[in-house]
Amino acid sequence: MRVAIVTVGDELLAGDTVNTNAAWLGERLTERGVDVERVVTLPDRVADIARVVNEYRAAYDAVVVTGGLGPTHDDLTMDGVAAAFGRDVVESQAALEWLAEEGGYAADELAEGTADIPRGARLLKNPEGVAPGCVVGSVYVLPGVPAEMKAMFETVAEEFAGEVAHVTTVVADEPESALLDRFDELRDRFDVTVGSYPGDSVRVKIQGDEDEVETAAAWLRERVDLAVEGDGGE
Amino acid sequence: MRVAIVTVGDELLAGDTVNTNAAWLGERLTERGVDVERVVTLPDRVADIARVVNEYRAAYDAVVVTGGLGPTHDDLTMDGVAAAFGRDVVESQAALEWLAEEGGYAADELAEGTADIPRGARLLKNPEGVAPGCVVGSVYVLPGVPAEMKAMFETVAEEFAGEVAHVTTVVADEPESALLDRFDELRDRFDVTVGSYPGDSVRVKIQGDEDEVETAAAWLRERVDLAVEGDGGE
Repeated sequence: MRVAIVTVGDELLAGDTVNTNAAWLGERLTERGVDVERVVTLPDRVADIARVVNEYRAAYDAVVVTGGLGPTHDDLTMDGVAAAFGRDVVESQAALEWLAEEGGYAADELAEGTADIPRGARLLKNPEGVAPGCVVGSVYVLPGVPAEMKAMFETVAEEFAGEVAHVTTVVADEPESALLDRFDELRDRFDVTVGSYPGDSVRVKIQGDEDEVETAAAWLRERVDLAVEGDGGE
Repeated sequence: MRVAIVTVGDELLAGDTVNTNAAWLGERLTERGVDVERVVTLPDRVADIARVVNEYRAAYDAVVVTGGLGPTHDDLTMDGVAAAFGRDVVESQAALEWLAEEGGYAADELAEGTADIPRGARLLKNPEGVAPGCVVGSVYVLPGVPAEMKAMFETVAEEFAGEVAHVTTVVADEPESALLDRFDELRDRFDVTVGSYPGDSVRVKIQGDEDEVETAAAWLRERVDLAVEGDGGE
């Protein structure tokens, strides 16, 4: 299963907010065996949201959109997603009922647009807030407030599934350039993918079938200077 | 000036690493009056990098690419950017001279590929590391290690410039939905853009011409319950 994550918000583009939502979703989806193929951040503009959601829903098995929900003038994600499907947004009876039952809000107390989702979309209730999410086709629309996004994602997490790769990390206390010969031999000898992430030490991430990964990691651990804090095995 | 940021790395997609580079670049570019229109994260794959860089260099005034530099097998950004321009990568004499002079590295000590950049590209020296960056057309290629990325960006920062908007933030201690009428009036009365970012309190970001923004902010401050920690004026 190949998925794209779309995060909406001028504050993300301007660097006012670090995109921790994308990292959290990437981690949760990867844990479930899903390949996250793209993360994109878009401005609060209907045309941009519509165009990119439309492109990504054609290219990937599912699209997770987060941010820009709510009744404020700069909350344009529902409009953008609706436009990507050539639909309008309509007040959702299911959302109104949920807001009345679980929030105690009467329809006339709610700000205009609070219960609007694209026509025909499946409602996603918000366990931590008032803004509803939804699913349209393969596009999941979640709030941007992290606690709300996480709680709502968990209500649909089981709809995301794939083959979970086994991962082990070896942390080497050598310059990355010195390790290149061993990376090449590791990739020749074993059927694994190898990622190398330099920092103060080099994290070597080995992925694939469990037995193969553990054999490869053991081989590598005997051939590098391991970082002091341990071998970082996960 | 409209700019896109392209961050490359499987570790970003999988949420192993939070994309602080994108936030830092977004903030620095916005400070310089540049509109950041897109941030995208791509996997370590040449075809994906080539396709997106090619699309973005046609759509935006400049593209800043970060991550995936170096001699490791999963460092594919130079290949991807070169492919976006229909060029190959070649060993840069300027890079070899810089590495010899400032790093004391002889050419035969360097891992294969260390000095490779797309043919005809302008070299960007790395003040904090060994991996060179480059500029090809309107595409700036920077390392992914944050200290190296920041130091290299500063060497070209002056090439990014636009009209700097004045920004003031008012922090309101009211629910966002209760503020909608005042947002509407604010936008009717003043020639400003208004962003609303809910959290424990609501940050209202007002942007535009300085006098207009300050007049609008003063108007709003008289009409909302200000958050206790002050009005957040920037």
